[in-house]
Amino acid sequence: MATKRVGILTGGGDVPGLNSVIKGVVYRGYGLDFEVTGIRLGWQGLTHVNLEDPQSRARYILPLNRVNTRTIDRTGGTFLHTSRTNPAKMKSLPDCLKGKNFPVREATKRGVTSKVFDITSAVLKNLETLQLDYLIAIGGDDTLSYAARLDKEGFPVICIPKTMDNDVQNTEYCIGFSTAITRATDAIERQRTTVGSHERVGVFRVFGRDAGHTALYTAYVSSVRCCIPEYKVNLDKLIDLIISDKRSNPSNYSLVVLSEGAEWEGYKVREYGDPDAFGHRKKMSVGEDLSDEIKRRAGEETVVSDLTYDLRGGSPDFVDKLVATTFANMALDALVKKKHGVMTAIVNGCFALSAIPDPKLGPRSVDVEKMYNTDRYRPNYSAKLGMPIFLVRA
Amino acid sequence: MATKRVGILTGGGDVPGLNSVIKGVVYRGYGLDFEVTGIRLGWQGLTHVNLEDPQSRARYILPLNRVNTRTIDRTGGTFLHTSRTNPAKMKSLPDCLKGKNFPVREATKRGVTSKVFDITSAVLKNLETLQLDYLIAIGGDDTLSYAARLDKEGFPVICIPKTMDNDVQNTEYCIGFSTAITRATDAIERQRTTVGSHERVGVFRVFGRDAGHTALYTAYVSSVRCCIPEYKVNLDKLIDLIISDKRSNPSNYSLVVLSEGAEWEGYKVREYGDPDAFGHRKKMSVGEDLSDEIKRRAGEETVVSDLTYDLRGGSPDFVDKLVATTFANMALDALVKKKHGVMTAIVNGCFALSAIPDPKLGPRSVDVEKMYNTDRYRPNYSAKLGMPIFLVRA
Amino acid sequence: MATKRVGILTGGGDVPGLNSVIKGVVYRGYGLDFEVTGIRLGWQGLTHVNLEDPQSRARYILPLNRVNTRTIDRTGGTFLHTSRTNPAKMKSLPDCLKGKNFPVREATKRGVTSKVFDITSAVLKNLETLQLDYLIAIGGDDTLSYAARLDKEGFPVICIPKTMDNDVQNTEYCIGFSTAITRATDAIERQRTTVGSHERVGVFRVFGRDAGHTALYTAYVSSVRCCIPEYKVNLDKLIDLIISDKRSNPSNYSLVVLSEGAEWEGYKVREYGDPDAFGHRKKMSVGEDLSDEIKRRAGEETVVSDLTYDLRGGSPDFVDKLVATTFANMALDALVKKKHGVMTAIVNGCFALSAIPDPKLGPRSVDVEKMYNTDRYRPNYSAKLGMPIFLVRA
Amino acid sequence: MATKRVGILTGGGDVPGLNSVIKGVVYRGYGLDFEVTGIRLGWQGLTHVNLEDPQSRARYILPLNRVNTRTIDRTGGTFLHTSRTNPAKMKSLPDCLKGKNFPVREATKRGVTSKVFDITSAVLKNLETLQLDYLIAIGGDDTLSYAARLDKEGFPVICIPKTMDNDVQNTEYCIGFSTAITRATDAIERQRTTVGSHERVGVFRVFGRDAGHTALYTAYVSSVRCCIPEYKVNLDKLIDLIISDKRSNPSNYSLVVLSEGAEWEGYKVREYGDPDAFGHRKKMSVGEDLSDEIKRRAGEETVVSDLTYDLRGGSPDFVDKLVATTFANMALDALVKKKHGVMTAIVNGCFALSAIPDPKLGPRSVDVEKMYNTDRYRPNYSAKLGMPIFLVRA
Repeated sequence: MATKRVGILTGGGDVPGLNSVIKGVVYRGYGLDFEVTGIRLGWQGLTHVNLEDPQSRARYILPLNRVNTRTIDRTGGTFLHTSRTNPAKMKSLPDCLKGKNFPVREATKRGVTSKVFDITSAVLKNLETLQLDYLIAIGGDDTLSYAARLDKEGFPVICIPKTMDNDVQNTEYCIGFSTAITRATDAIERQRTTVGSHERVGVFRVFGRDAGHTALYTAYVSSVRCCIPEYKVNLDKLIDLIISDKRSNPSNYSLVVLSEGAEWEGYKVREYGDPDAFGHRKKMSVGEDLSDEIKRRAGEETVVSDLTYDLRGGSPDFVDKLVATTFANMALDALVKKKHGVMTAIVNGCFALSAIPDPKLGPRSVDVEKMYNTDRYRPNYSAKLGMPIFLVRA
Repeated sequence: MATKRVGILTGGGDVPGLNSVIKGVVYRGYGLDFEVTGIRLGWQGLTHVNLEDPQSRARYILPLNRVNTRTIDRTGGTFLHTSRTNPAKMKSLPDCLKGKNFPVREATKRGVTSKVFDITSAVLKNLETLQLDYLIAIGGDDTLSYAARLDKEGFPVICIPKTMDNDVQNTEYCIGFSTAITRATDAIERQRTTVGSHERVGVFRVFGRDAGHTALYTAYVSSVRCCIPEYKVNLDKLIDLIISDKRSNPSNYSLVVLSEGAEWEGYKVREYGDPDAFGHRKKMSVGEDLSDEIKRRAGEETVVSDLTYDLRGGSPDFVDKLVATTFANMALDALVKKKHGVMTAIVNGCFALSAIPDPKLGPRSVDVEKMYNTDRYRPNYSAKLGMPIFLVRA
Repeated sequence: MATKRVGILTGGGDVPGLNSVIKGVVYRGYGLDFEVTGIRLGWQGLTHVNLEDPQSRARYILPLNRVNTRTIDRTGGTFLHTSRTNPAKMKSLPDCLKGKNFPVREATKRGVTSKVFDITSAVLKNLETLQLDYLIAIGGDDTLSYAARLDKEGFPVICIPKTMDNDVQNTEYCIGFSTAITRATDAIERQRTTVGSHERVGVFRVFGRDAGHTALYTAYVSSVRCCIPEYKVNLDKLIDLIISDKRSNPSNYSLVVLSEGAEWEGYKVREYGDPDAFGHRKKMSVGEDLSDEIKRRAGEETVVSDLTYDLRGGSPDFVDKLVATTFANMALDALVKKKHGVMTAIVNGCFALSAIPDPKLGPRSVDVEKMYNTDRYRPNYSAKLGMPIFLVRA
Repeated sequence: MATKRVGILTGGGDVPGLNSVIKGVVYRGYGLDFEVTGIRLGWQGLTHVNLEDPQSRARYILPLNRVNTRTIDRTGGTFLHTSRTNPAKMKSLPDCLKGKNFPVREATKRGVTSKVFDITSAVLKNLETLQLDYLIAIGGDDTLSYAARLDKEGFPVICIPKTMDNDVQNTEYCIGFSTAITRATDAIERQRTTVGSHERVGVFRVFGRDAGHTALYTAYVSSVRCCIPEYKVNLDKLIDLIISDKRSNPSNYSLVVLSEGAEWEGYKVREYGDPDAFGHRKKMSVGEDLSDEIKRRAGEETVVSDLTYDLRGGSPDFVDKLVATTFANMALDALVKKKHGVMTAIVNGCFALSAIPDPKLGPRSVDVEKMYNTDRYRPNYSAKLGMPIFLVRA
């Protein structure tokens, strides 16, 4: 088989396990006669690079081999760095493309509409100049949606899903999720002693604006109450449960985990501080708001703890290494069989190749009926027989 | 529904996650109107207990509730303690049964044949006196085989598989396996720096006499060579690979992981020390033997590291908490539906109820063809599409 | 020697290591014929207890022995729980003392002046009823200042200093400090990968309103810039240094650690949210403020991470166990020698008995000249010859 | 000041913290106008290098700068690698020196006498060719003794002590000791659950052939029995204490920590396996021997756990980072002041410059009278007032 050239990039927020994918592709690719080229900073590596400028090329293009990827799987983050650039939704043109003509359309993000350029033609040009045959794109919804676009334009792409929120459609698991729960439960176990010693209510907030998987699974294995964006709880009832937990605990404390996007009936996110350049003010944390309500309504002291970037820091746990390594190898196996335009996935508990999710579907939500006890504001522990191992169906 | 009384016990070697099962059964049982009785020290709690003697009863029988199990899931081990007692294979009668008549037969274990008593009648008597309706038995092959026996005798039992070796038949996962790999990879990552600083060959031995899953999956995620009991390697070739790894590593070291039961062609386990009461001498570790051969044949210095009890120490990782909690709830759901004589399991990537394994089948081995690269003495990374998440089929 | 009765309590914020002190006192006390009584919830156990009410007594008084303290040193927090109660500054009288006469005076805390009761007479009464001969008080400034008061009133007290801020006068080390730095550096190491992958500026805020030891020592061992309450930096220069660090880092990111109470020239803490019952509004984090300035002035993206309760969570590290155990034994050795009114301490690198600090001195500050490089906004690494091991002098 | 050239090397067994020293020297040296040259593989880098052969030079000489040392302090081991080579005791001549004349003398090591070459003249030649002005040597007894020799020969050397055994004379602390205790106590805490679940005696063996500090301080903070090379215990009494601990523990287990070199009265180390090239057979572990005796005399089951290379693996803890960084800066401060022939140290709890230890003194032993309770086979917890923080005097 003639040597094939495969590009690889990571987009969106980083998670532990990305480096296992990158190393896996390079090491297995070696045996399959694939030459692997790293595209740095996600799609930005294909939008901002000026391939004729050695400095720009050095910043954005990194040929990968066994020597420069040998140790990368020992740490989190992504060796190739990342960005949130989407070539179909560029707010402005990169310097090297200034003055050129690209299609323009209107795009709306968090309520703000703006004109955006679609510079796919430039991306395709760069892929051609780089003489790449395939691309492996690792990312969440946004990164993968553009990967689907490229594949439709005729450039063969394989996707690998990652996000600590585990909310990509068409797969039951995204790289980074297990490590995020590991970090969250570690933090709660560490802080449990201080909440208990002061006999307070511990309010833990975790990332998750649209989907509550991270809060829910943390609660599932830690045996605590939780609130998720998919279900609005009743505030009085929630506080009653929390206080009743505290009273019945011989150590006189209780804990609750909230998704960033959790709300109660009638809740309105409050804002504070000065508006930024886009007129946006900072949003009050729902954790602090709940804390205020607990103090006000129940007279109890609280500890509010924000578990944020720590959840995607550090090195990957066993499951993330296992899945990342397997996804990397599946991606190459697929390319060998001329498959593309698909996403490595776990479906019904097994490794699979899925369709790249349609961005219109939005993030995969928690199945409230199956997984959330709307009476006890807790995960639902019953009727798991037949469910895939991560308790969700793609 | 009238209150039902369920006993619970843990047998065989402990693993992290057992306490999550125990707590899960107690907490969920509370809502389902199950009263839970802990049997201490595995089957010994039903063979050695004298229910009329308060001191013996206190040693072996512990009523469980939300207060005494509240904090147990934070630590490894088993709150109920454990033993390797098998009521059908008692070498001698417990004090309280001395002089009574029980069936006797011959049993052979590791080459030694001895007369054993089957005191199942006494166990059934104790279960009756304790007024238990069901029993949940958590253990590996040996513990579960006796559970099957009891169920056949008419006492309804549900089994939950655990073992860091992950070698119980009819399930793709046993509680404790993921944590064992977590511990093994952590230890290798820590010691990697000292092997490298001295430019040596690091030889890591892990538990696993009959099945190589622990060594294999550690190697899979750590990207190192491994030897497993299921395949005899060629010693010359193995050492060639190890030395070639070392030469090609810019840091001039290499690593290999061996199962306790790994062998090479022509290998004979050596013994040392004085014979014990049964005439058994200590066995040389295959790790030390390989180290001697590397020194002798290749003139390289080695570091031999035995990863043993550490692999089952500490608190469970996310997967073990997730599976343990789910198995506990599945066991109760099964009892509510009057199912018994089954084992909670993962089959084809999904939670399932399986048949309790027939002890004649022995431990589940590594599928060498699918999972081991007999040419490279490494895990096999190809063709995982369609495989369940733990890359094995029950 | 006749049995002596010693009380023990923990006050103020908990830190890892308190349980090692408690266990140490109980275990060593056993051999020295001390009977140890735990006072629960700090001074509150002596102000709020009604010794004639069994329920109140059970809540506040806990006789300690080898069985109930055997396992406590494995976890952080305080087995005896804690509070911020100061018997000389009670805002209101406990229920059981309502209607009784106590001296009243005015006290000012964070700008608010209020009338407070001094109920020392009740505390002394309770100590007498409990037939205690001595008291061991473990705490920070506030807890210890009341201990000094009691000792002056004639009840013999020994103090043991703890605080993750390491800012108690007359000692170079307080229990909890080393673990706090351990936690902070662990968190920074974990999050470093995500800051780097996104090529951002990582802004870490740590506890420390008045003294910057925690930020400073974290920076010392992590090799990053830091800002402390003891020195107002120039904002332009700080941002220049941070951006220049980022530019010169091949991985294009930089890190800075701020004490909660750090400020720059001209900085005014901003407030947000609704006023609470005391008219206080929430304070903006200096970390978020710095992040806003970096974005605004340098156009760089940031990650703000708040390291708060995590720093006092989890189990103590080696140094905290070593010091806690030794302080516990020194306290008993002192009592045997009839010494009291003193504090166990480290002075000039050696274990010592110090004067209990005069509360008028306030917290021990960072010695800016010796320890902070006001030119580079970094710890000062030079001229450590002759300094005690923790690089401070009591 | 004209630029000065300083060499740096690490010798003997690696420990976590060495990289903090190396980075500290490079970073601080930058400001002081020192150019730093790494000598790889300890003294071997000065004995085996052929400075005219580019390949040999590349293997042994590595110019250090901020870029190539930026990330090294995040991991254990030594970036410069290490060896046990002693230029004054070479068993054979390196290839590049074959045929040349060097003084020969007899040296005895572990009972074997052999002829050794002293190739100091070649080392001095290489230092001259490398145009080095100073050398910083980091190591234990053996490495430092040769450093003293070099300094006496007129080449200015500064020493930095490291060893997980903490047994270098003239200092109360050696880099690596705190991390070793951290690792040992972590391992014991993890394995405690499995020892307890099986109701066994846990026998932990730690490195330490001649000095018992590692076992002793692990025992001090873990509250368990210990045996050290400096005191021969009585075996009957030891087993009585262990069994009595087990009986009085509600969880029915007990633990003991042994130094590798610990012995009891009448103990004879047993050997096993075939003799190696030097006629040496492997030594039975004292842990296994004690385990055999416990089984035989008390009929109790045991768990033997060998804590070996793990104690020097992983990244350094806070104290080791603090001391390593400070020692690095003290070494440069000393050179600026033209001091040499000294060792950075902690003396009486404070940072100091000590004499390089006279190798005739051998390792620093545990002060049995002060630190070991010969009646209880435990650390001695009394009379610590006035002792330096690490409870030893240099």
